Amino acid sequence: MSMFELEEAHTEYTTPTGFRATSPASGGLIEPVFGAATSADVIRACQQAEAASAVFRNSPCEVRAALLEAIADQIIALGDPLLERAAIETGLPLARLTGERGRTVGQLRLFAAELRDGSWLDLRIDPALPDRLPVPRPDLRLRKIAVGPVAVFGASNFPLAFSVAGGDTAAALAAGCPVVAKAHPAHPGTSQMVGAAITAAVAAADLPDGVFALLTGPGTAAGAALVAHSAIKAVGFTGSRGGGLALMEIAANRPVPIPVFAEMSSINPVFLLPGALAERAAQLGAEFVGSLTLGAGQFCTNPGIVCAVAGPALDAFIASAITALNQAAAAVMLSPGIHEAYVRGAAQLAGHGAVTPLAEGIASDQPNRGQPRLFSVGAADFMADPALQEEVFGAASVIVRCADFDELYAVAQSLEGQLTATLHLAACDYAQARRLIELLETKAGRILANGWPTGVEVSHAMVHGGPFPATSDGRSTSVGTLAIDRFTRPVCYQDIPKALLPAVLQDNAVGQPRRVDGVRLA
Amino acid sequence: MSMFELEEAHTEYTTPTGFRATSPASGGLIEPVFGAATSADVIRACQQAEAASAVFRNSPCEVRAALLEAIADQIIALGDPLLERAAIETGLPLARLTGERGRTVGQLRLFAAELRDGSWLDLRIDPALPDRLPVPRPDLRLRKIAVGPVAVFGASNFPLAFSVAGGDTAAALAAGCPVVAKAHPAHPGTSQMVGAAITAAVAAADLPDGVFALLTGPGTAAGAALVAHSAIKAVGFTGSRGGGLALMEIAANRPVPIPVFAEMSSINPVFLLPGALAERAAQLGAEFVGSLTLGAGQFCTNPGIVCAVAGPALDAFIASAITALNQAAAAVMLSPGIHEAYVRGAAQLAGHGAVTPLAEGIASDQPNRGQPRLFSVGAADFMADPALQEEVFGAASVIVRCADFDELYAVAQSLEGQLTATLHLAACDYAQARRLIELLETKAGRILANGWPTGVEVSHAMVHGGPFPATSDGRSTSVGTLAIDRFTRPVCYQDIPKALLPAVLQDNAVGQPRRVDGVRLA
Repeated sequence: MSMFELEEAHTEYTTPTGFRATSPASGGLIEPVFGAATSADVIRACQQAEAASAVFRNSPCEVRAALLEAIADQIIALGDPLLERAAIETGLPLARLTGERGRTVGQLRLFAAELRDGSWLDLRIDPALPDRLPVPRPDLRLRKIAVGPVAVFGASNFPLAFSVAGGDTAAALAAGCPVVAKAHPAHPGTSQMVGAAITAAVAAADLPDGVFALLTGPGTAAGAALVAHSAIKAVGFTGSRGGGLALMEIAANRPVPIPVFAEMSSINPVFLLPGALAERAAQLGAEFVGSLTLGAGQFCTNPGIVCAVAGPALDAFIASAITALNQAAAAVMLSPGIHEAYVRGAAQLAGHGAVTPLAEGIASDQPNRGQPRLFSVGAADFMADPALQEEVFGAASVIVRCADFDELYAVAQSLEGQLTATLHLAACDYAQARRLIELLETKAGRILANGWPTGVEVSHAMVHGGPFPATSDGRSTSVGTLAIDRFTRPVCYQDIPKALLPAVLQDNAVGQPRRVDGVRLA
Repeated sequence: MSMFELEEAHTEYTTPTGFRATSPASGGLIEPVFGAATSADVIRACQQAEAASAVFRNSPCEVRAALLEAIADQIIALGDPLLERAAIETGLPLARLTGERGRTVGQLRLFAAELRDGSWLDLRIDPALPDRLPVPRPDLRLRKIAVGPVAVFGASNFPLAFSVAGGDTAAALAAGCPVVAKAHPAHPGTSQMVGAAITAAVAAADLPDGVFALLTGPGTAAGAALVAHSAIKAVGFTGSRGGGLALMEIAANRPVPIPVFAEMSSINPVFLLPGALAERAAQLGAEFVGSLTLGAGQFCTNPGIVCAVAGPALDAFIASAITALNQAAAAVMLSPGIHEAYVRGAAQLAGHGAVTPLAEGIASDQPNRGQPRLFSVGAADFMADPALQEEVFGAASVIVRCADFDELYAVAQSLEGQLTATLHLAACDYAQARRLIELLETKAGRILANGWPTGVEVSHAMVHGGPFPATSDGRSTSVGTLAIDRFTRPVCYQDIPKALLPAVLQDNAVGQPRRVDGVRLA
């Protein structure tokens, strides 16, 4: 996904007192200057988060539900200036940002509903059995609690939905974890507006200031210091593989290691099975280019490879895709750094001895425009060079030509962990699809049929995650209500007097699901 | 807990073709010779586990429930010879081992019931909304699936319940993960008998051989190779801090990192609050020594420190504890290595300038007998030296004398992560207890009142885990039905044709709980 350049100093746009954002559309700097968080700022934010942790963790679910809804309201109340600032900083169109704002506030409200449901608490009560032989059973009660302060790194490609008030922040606040957010340097103004909205909601809820803090800065030092701070108990990150790996290393080498939930890189393989190709090759080719070029290809679920058995039907798919791609305009990318990385990645593909360039979109002489690119490669060559599995963030994709289904299956086997895997299939493809699904379950967090991976529903059944390197920990999701689980841990209370038990574990607590001696009660 | 000595070569009991166990009670070697797994053995076991993975993962819950029950039956069918071999290899009394066998088979049967309940699958269905605007919602279905083959390291101190067919194996098999178990070298014969029982049950269930494998060996090379093998997707370990850290490092440095669930070290603080001390100081002293010396102190939940405000009531507690301890016999420990480590740890405490030796149990001239030891230290000295927080595995404990509640609270704050934290309290202590519980939630996986931490119920609400270094990952438990979760990951199926959907995600699947559009259905 977006780039978190640990090595890049961004010196070109820093000032003695801070830094400015760049307009990717014009290439120019945008006022005002934003401060660069010092190490004292990081320490203060972490200490305040730690100080707020107990009160926030044990706040009633209803208090946090209301907080999330108030944050949503505050974001809406920012009105058009938020969207306009985001558009300037990211180059994303206003219509897209309007939709993304809806997604962001919808996500906050969905977590509010999830808090009121209470399933996430996983409440369990095993009542005392004082007369059991040979030894009595004590009274045992389990709930999940917040892990503590969470560091959230905003992503560049969703300046609202995966950024300061994005999925990780919503999930962490829902769980009862204070959040210290590190703004992505590509959209500091957007970040600061959203951060102010959260801060206002926290204050209005009479919660401690430390429940939320925002750090801005051009480089990576503040983020590294944040992850290293003892108060931080978990990390949410969406960005590059290099950035994610760097944070994982910092977290693993702390005196007390902490979990890092890093969403890093995925090429989202698409498998076109013979029946589907025979039925609708041309349609699939056009749809594919629509998915590939959506948002200048800047989605973590962008289809980076398409695998199919070579033959006339695949040729028809390719012909259709080339036609569509030739008409696709170069689109402004999120930042100069991301555009440069795209150009470099596409050039590496074009220069690869085994790779054939198939098509280019319409070129542009404007700055930071990503020109869509399509390539093809033989399956054996693809499997021979792991570099061909590296994500090129942007609208570039590679068609992998396979000799037969066995080779297509071998390509699937050779893949690293992915966020998504897609099958296009007809009824006559079910036998092949069954084999592929069984394999792809081990490779991807989401398997989809007869659709395209770009488009991630925010709901209960969504999984936006997947085995390494798609994420650092494939046992989690960063989208959907299950995301709350990553920021919790179970605690058992044994024979604790009723007066001292948490409210949700009282005998007379109602409205939240629980298991009593293993039996589910609503 | 038990020692997994990565540095120790155990050369003294190796032979050219393998190694023998030592009888801790006599100090002598026990026949027969057991093989030392070679790297070819490790590779073969991992490859077979990988080959069995898909079939086992997608086997019906009922098949795995029946397998777990069959393993329990096979273990019972081993009869007295199993207990006798375990007694010789571990020095544990037959009565204790009989109870531990009951716990082990009960645990297997509890996971069978949990499989039939199905809550652990976390089934979620968000039905398609084809007419939704601006875009339709696809059909989304989530289930949790097995992560893949799991490496399980047997612990020395529970040769049945935390070993080859112990909690991690039961949880992993329940989830649908093949298990490659590394037998603890202190009880290879017990391990081999139990391993054969599992193998027989796997064969009888017509499941692939690779569902279970057992590796024996005296050193640590096989275990290290096992954790490094690409087929292994998670690790369960109970042992020393050094051993757990070594495995965490191997796992984090693989090309594809994997989660390690290592239970490592815990001193299980006990806090005696003033009301409780005033009411029953002498009784608490005697109970404390009972918990401390149970099983020669070889429990991971052994009470390693007792914190209280100094004064006549604490003096009465200490006097009672000294009386009881003076009557406690030295007891055979699990292995010469564990006995040596205990003697060394107790000597370090005795030789610490700030520590006062209070009492010793009855000495023994027999080999490998651990003599119970009791010490005291002032709170300020305790907090000044982190070495005093290091677990001494065995029947040694330190009473931490505090000036007042604030100092006692500061001691609690200074503690590392723990498996358990215990409060003894009366009604007049509730205000202090409330403050401590709020703090201890962040320090321990289980908080108990007016009891002793040794004694871990196998049930739904148990948490046997806790923040680092009690475990490598405090978001999990190694005891109780919630343990299954550590070996699963969520997968989302989007618009998958009904004919290709897993059975549990079919519309007409019944009997397992699910959430449809977030609404809980039984």
